[in-house]
Amino acid sequence: MVRIVIDAMGSDEHPAPDVEGAVAAARAYGVEIILVGDEALIRPTLEKQNAQGLNIRIVHAPDMLTMEDKGEALLLKARAKDAKNSMAVGIDLVKSGEADAFVTAGNTGAGMATAIFRLGRIRGVDRPALAPIFPTAKGSCVVLDIGANPNCKPENLLQFGILGSVYAEKVRGVKNPKVGLISNGEEEGKGNELIQNTTPLFKASSLNYVGNVEGKEVIGGAVDVAVVDGFTGNVMLKTSEAVAKLIVDTIRSTIKNGNLQTKIGGMLVKPALSAVKKMINPSEQGAATMLGVNGLVFIAHGRSDALAIQNSIRVAKEAVEVNVLEAMKNAIEESVKK
Amino acid sequence: MVRIVIDAMGSDEHPAPDVEGAVAAARAYGVEIILVGDEALIRPTLEKQNAQGLNIRIVHAPDMLTMEDKGEALLLKARAKDAKNSMAVGIDLVKSGEADAFVTAGNTGAGMATAIFRLGRIRGVDRPALAPIFPTAKGSCVVLDIGANPNCKPENLLQFGILGSVYAEKVRGVKNPKVGLISNGEEEGKGNELIQNTTPLFKASSLNYVGNVEGKEVIGGAVDVAVVDGFTGNVMLKTSEAVAKLIVDTIRSTIKNGNLQTKIGGMLVKPALSAVKKMINPSEQGAATMLGVNGLVFIAHGRSDALAIQNSIRVAKEAVEVNVLEAMKNAIEESVKK
Repeated sequence: MVRIVIDAMGSDEHPAPDVEGAVAAARAYGVEIILVGDEALIRPTLEKQNAQGLNIRIVHAPDMLTMEDKGEALLLKARAKDAKNSMAVGIDLVKSGEADAFVTAGNTGAGMATAIFRLGRIRGVDRPALAPIFPTAKGSCVVLDIGANPNCKPENLLQFGILGSVYAEKVRGVKNPKVGLISNGEEEGKGNELIQNTTPLFKASSLNYVGNVEGKEVIGGAVDVAVVDGFTGNVMLKTSEAVAKLIVDTIRSTIKNGNLQTKIGGMLVKPALSAVKKMINPSEQGAATMLGVNGLVFIAHGRSDALAIQNSIRVAKEAVEVNVLEAMKNAIEESVKK
Repeated sequence: MVRIVIDAMGSDEHPAPDVEGAVAAARAYGVEIILVGDEALIRPTLEKQNAQGLNIRIVHAPDMLTMEDKGEALLLKARAKDAKNSMAVGIDLVKSGEADAFVTAGNTGAGMATAIFRLGRIRGVDRPALAPIFPTAKGSCVVLDIGANPNCKPENLLQFGILGSVYAEKVRGVKNPKVGLISNGEEEGKGNELIQNTTPLFKASSLNYVGNVEGKEVIGGAVDVAVVDGFTGNVMLKTSEAVAKLIVDTIRSTIKNGNLQTKIGGMLVKPALSAVKKMINPSEQGAATMLGVNGLVFIAHGRSDALAIQNSIRVAKEAVEVNVLEAMKNAIEESVKK
């Protein structure tokens, strides 16, 4: 039975969405759930659920990391041996082998730092990366790094490509994933210095490298894995989310402030707009994953509801079942040998 | 009378939108228009317009730069003293003082290279930047650089800030424009090396620097000018355009494939969707401008229609009237003295 640790203190509305999503996942996927966090908060929430007969237990963690945790102070907390926050306690359960994967909807930076310090890196990986799933015109694309590494070297990007490719193949079920390097133009000769120095490494690799891609190819679905430095990737992710929100908000307010005809039309097309809202809801695509750390860690959006948590747990379970961690280790080892 | 040169060979559907937009601008704004390009193509298009009494003339340029022009070959064409392509001929008219500004909807890279080589730079500007206008929740934002400079140094970004601020104030009419530096997080300490080294320069400048901003602040309208290196800016722009297109396409196809109720609703909300289409149409915001070259050059989207060309000419005229070039020169000179 796959054992998943959930950070019950993760989401903005914790612990309700986190606990409810975990219970739903235990029921739907037959996973064992370990809820970490303040037991006094978790217990009553759990008791409200119809969780009898499900394999769920609580591991008490009195502290929590919040959005206020950043910079040097965060790194100390992520590192501290005796840390009692829910992320550290939860990730330690993965490290000790008591659980197979950790899922949190908490502070992304805190989740990344805690995972890197407590689990360490896969041998041969210099920098782990955060990899969310972007919705595209043809389905989805694994994009990495979107924030763990603002400064990258060519070798970092190559490792991101290898990790992302294995993840897309094993967990997303894409055969021979198409890998692209994000650039300011597809032609060779385009790109900043980093991209120009990285392109030869991708060409010489055993990746299914299809060339350099622009944002429109990524969103258009031309590749299954898109590699980018963490600075550009982060700007790209946040701008995309903001543009999507602006468009949906504009449609909504235009309808709301429109004449009667527009308002009636708005009611009638509501299902169509829900499809879009679903597509652009970061929770719908499941959690982002930390690739390159020596363990499975999934970081969901802070705005996650119970369904988003449940989805994230499903993805975590699938990642455990296909043993993506072992596959990544092997792929990195192969690439180092070359 | 303000004299504007239009590249009649610019837009994807040239010369019709370019010529029609120019005629409309001559009529609406009382500008003098110089159409450059293949006279044999321009003349019949112009004759179809009701252009009697307007101040419009044609300057023949037998060659044109296309999307195929790139790399070294493009640089040679942009540079060649005897170049006979419409961009070179048009920009030379600005350089010689026969015209006040140049507008093209042609190949962006070709427009940038031709402007830089033929007009040269404003004294004190190391790297000119391409500055489009992004739609935001509160209006619009000047974003630069979005592609001229994939590799930037801190001083380049500072110059972008100065140029963008003057442009926003003079041409966009924003008092004391708020300037932000695009980063992967607002807190100090965030950012890649470039941003960390650039932040002190912005702080020490006389800009109304409001701090570092994420994509969501830019799109949310928190700043009037957003400064970014040309690599990240280009990825940001193209991803934004692609996300906007994906959402609009998804809404359209959901309505088209929906049931009768959805289809009726779709007809009723059409005006609301047009507002969004208008907002995200790159042409609606007017052309991007090359800031830092010693002359006024505007580069509109290749998909520009006549209205977009007309809009671009209006912006060019306003830029001439407020003498933004002189203001930028003064601002750069001031900053160098400091």
